[in-house]
Amino acid sequence: MPFLRPDNQPIILGVVGDSAAGKSTLAGGIAAILGQDRVAVLQADDYHRHSRAERRRIGITALDPEGNHVDILEQHLCLLRRGHPILKPVYNHKDGTLCPPARLEPKPFVIVEGLLAYHSRILRDCYDVKVFVEPDEDLRTRWKQARDCAERGYSPQDVRLSLDRREADSLAHVQPQRSFADIVVRFAPSSDTPGDISDGADSLLNARHLLRPTLAHPDLGPVLDAGGKGGFHLALARDSDGKPVDVLDISGRIDGRRAKAVEDLLWSLIPEASHLRAPLGRFTDRAGQTATSHTLALSQLLITYHLVKAAQGLTGTR
Amino acid sequence: MPFLRPDNQPIILGVVGDSAAGKSTLAGGIAAILGQDRVAVLQADDYHRHSRAERRRIGITALDPEGNHVDILEQHLCLLRRGHPILKPVYNHKDGTLCPPARLEPKPFVIVEGLLAYHSRILRDCYDVKVFVEPDEDLRTRWKQARDCAERGYSPQDVRLSLDRREADSLAHVQPQRSFADIVVRFAPSSDTPGDISDGADSLLNARHLLRPTLAHPDLGPVLDAGGKGGFHLALARDSDGKPVDVLDISGRIDGRRAKAVEDLLWSLIPEASHLRAPLGRFTDRAGQTATSHTLALSQLLITYHLVKAAQGLTGTR
Repeated sequence: MPFLRPDNQPIILGVVGDSAAGKSTLAGGIAAILGQDRVAVLQADDYHRHSRAERRRIGITALDPEGNHVDILEQHLCLLRRGHPILKPVYNHKDGTLCPPARLEPKPFVIVEGLLAYHSRILRDCYDVKVFVEPDEDLRTRWKQARDCAERGYSPQDVRLSLDRREADSLAHVQPQRSFADIVVRFAPSSDTPGDISDGADSLLNARHLLRPTLAHPDLGPVLDAGGKGGFHLALARDSDGKPVDVLDISGRIDGRRAKAVEDLLWSLIPEASHLRAPLGRFTDRAGQTATSHTLALSQLLITYHLVKAAQGLTGTR
Repeated sequence: MPFLRPDNQPIILGVVGDSAAGKSTLAGGIAAILGQDRVAVLQADDYHRHSRAERRRIGITALDPEGNHVDILEQHLCLLRRGHPILKPVYNHKDGTLCPPARLEPKPFVIVEGLLAYHSRILRDCYDVKVFVEPDEDLRTRWKQARDCAERGYSPQDVRLSLDRREADSLAHVQPQRSFADIVVRFAPSSDTPGDISDGADSLLNARHLLRPTLAHPDLGPVLDAGGKGGFHLALARDSDGKPVDVLDISGRIDGRRAKAVEDLLWSLIPEASHLRAPLGRFTDRAGQTATSHTLALSQLLITYHLVKAAQGLTGTR
């Protein structure tokens, strides 16, 4: 098991972001690369204190830390980090009810997805790699409409109300967690199709990665050469908080053969994982069909790079 | 808070024994003495892995360690011992189903009741005081019939089958835990009413306490004097395992005034708790009415003595 630390302690990836920001879609491809049987996924939303009905009665949103067992999530994440199983709560997103708990056994990799999974210092200290996803807001609204209506029994009007109700808590509790991420991933419509977020366009979204110096990022020189000027762009920039950061832009219009060449180069940076090649970049499009996106695939691969390196004890600057 | 350790770590009492051995009845009075708001009760039965229906399908009893999350119970008990809250599973005895989990906040005292709560070394190391209850077997059978039919939706025939199904697991897993207890409590019909386990007789049961040298037991000299020859008897004996042990017999026929005098003497041994005087010895009789028993009251008081001493850092021979 080249990916299991000698002391049986998992490598932990966080994928945090607002509701319907694409956390599960991003994490799904990463889990596919690493191998489903070697990945345990912990949904931080399972730690909601209240059912959907209770939240409405109390007047609290799912984004409020007071409405979540944050201390128990801390406890469980620390236990997983030490290689222990947990009996975790279960929240049913379909009907918004609390269910009997379920065991989660530690695996070589643990992916934690959630709204508040970087809320406290104790939580943040548990991760090897912290990703924050913040898609273009119009895009996220559309994704939330599509998912909550199709899978969670909401009407479009319900979703609109829910977004309004959650806005203050999102600003207060979810978005501040962005500053703790090693990588901030933003998907947005291609600039050459302004406002075009219609059906099918999700496979052509641009991806922007903010790479913070809290991780040792791969030497992207060869990748940039292979990608050519049309697909990849790396530049020093100031983040919205004024701090210096590397910004990697991957164009949604990248040519398929170029994207493939970049994928190959990224795989070559993690030769220990190259036997794991899995179909990447998959997502469910608006018609409910499985589609693929080059920028999603490359984003998944870039994040996986860090997990593989962490499993080798090469965890960057910490 | 004289009963809270300076480091916020609770005193933990275990009450282990077979199904319907009287664990909750014994523990209830102890909690009443200590104060309900200062006691958290953890039911180890909540850690059943399967619903009643699943157990029947799989062919496993609730007494089989494989049918319980013993490792999670260990984890949770260690967390409580360190003063942390837990999110514990919930098993509904009424219909035998698994329910959403519930928070349990640590209190100055934690009472753990269950079938398998001394199963592992990790569990046993968590307790300050370990009690094992083993009533006369005919008595236990009657208690189980009464409770399971009244409260758990079983028919008398179901209970009989359940006792048969569980016998091997009781021998293999429950009864061996007896040897780890500091105190073994046995209730049995009075010798002068042989075979009389009819209605009402529960208030006249004899109590026998095996006192192991793993705890510093109180000086019972004054108690024995006050109890007089008719009520209390303390003798050195060999336990069924051949090891030396003190045996304290409390007669079910003890005179009410004598019992009261002994109670007063026991309270005087724990003056720091005397303001907590609570009604002791209560149980639910066969008619479903609350009744009282002197031997139950004195048993509860003797065990509470050890908890109060443990809270003062006087934890006996360990």
